[in-house]
Amino acid sequence: MFAERKDKKQIELGTELAPAFNEHGLIPCITSDAGTGEILMFAWMNREAFKLTLKTKKATYFSRSREKIWVKGESSGRVQHIKQILVDCDQDVIQLRVEVEGEGVCHRGYRSCFYREISNPETGRLTFVEDAPAFDPEEVYGKNKK
Amino acid sequence: MFAERKDKKQIELGTELAPAFNEHGLIPCITSDAGTGEILMFAWMNREAFKLTLKTKKATYFSRSREKIWVKGESSGRVQHIKQILVDCDQDVIQLRVEVEGEGVCHRGYRSCFYREISNPETGRLTFVEDAPAFDPEEVYGKNKK
Repeated sequence: MFAERKDKKQIELGTELAPAFNEHGLIPCITSDAGTGEILMFAWMNREAFKLTLKTKKATYFSRSREKIWVKGESSGRVQHIKQILVDCDQDVIQLRVEVEGEGVCHRGYRSCFYREISNPETGRLTFVEDAPAFDPEEVYGKNKK
Repeated sequence: MFAERKDKKQIELGTELAPAFNEHGLIPCITSDAGTGEILMFAWMNREAFKLTLKTKKATYFSRSREKIWVKGESSGRVQHIKQILVDCDQDVIQLRVEVEGEGVCHRGYRSCFYREISNPETGRLTFVEDAPAFDPEEVYGKNKK
């Protein structure tokens, strides 16, 4: 399923999936909403998570803090169904386009993890771009898992 | 401009910019088209690149291969003008929403670096989602810089 990386031409202009995993065996993954195009979250995959994502069609990441495979939505029910997977020119970044079951992917209850913008570049002041969380994270994850 | 990172509440629900840089002093950055929302590229910033991006309003990255600050478009003319900068819940990923001068951000001439999708998840076969490059990279970057 993963081809050996040979040269720039194969990697950048070829039709073989030849992903690069970093020194920790991970590849960065950007997840967006297949319907709206909104960027929802950013996470990492190891080889196993990438293979499981391809096989099950459910977004599966590798949690660096918990050091284990993490099927998104397994505890919250907010499963991410894969609609499309793209690779970048160097094949060292993946983009998942997904359909989310329910509203919100962020552990804080927001639709997207990118719920704040830098509204003042001089002071670094942040402003919320989502009015309110899409769901109550305590209800979904419990009080301690937030 | 960058606040000290104190606790989860400040980082995840606060209004102070308190970005996390990894063990190499870098933070991942997703760049999307402010008009269409399309994900264009993925790169890294160090503190200096982040500060310059905020100050100049031109996307400025850190090239890990060349180990230096890299003002996107300085050689190609395809400058990325910042329209919005978002941070994620953990403040360890940035999203830039930009307006690109000219067509195409990829060194291969494509509009987006994500110009291929995994069309067959079993074999890992890739298919091009962009019909043709938006510009000729040899013309823009020269034959050797591709």
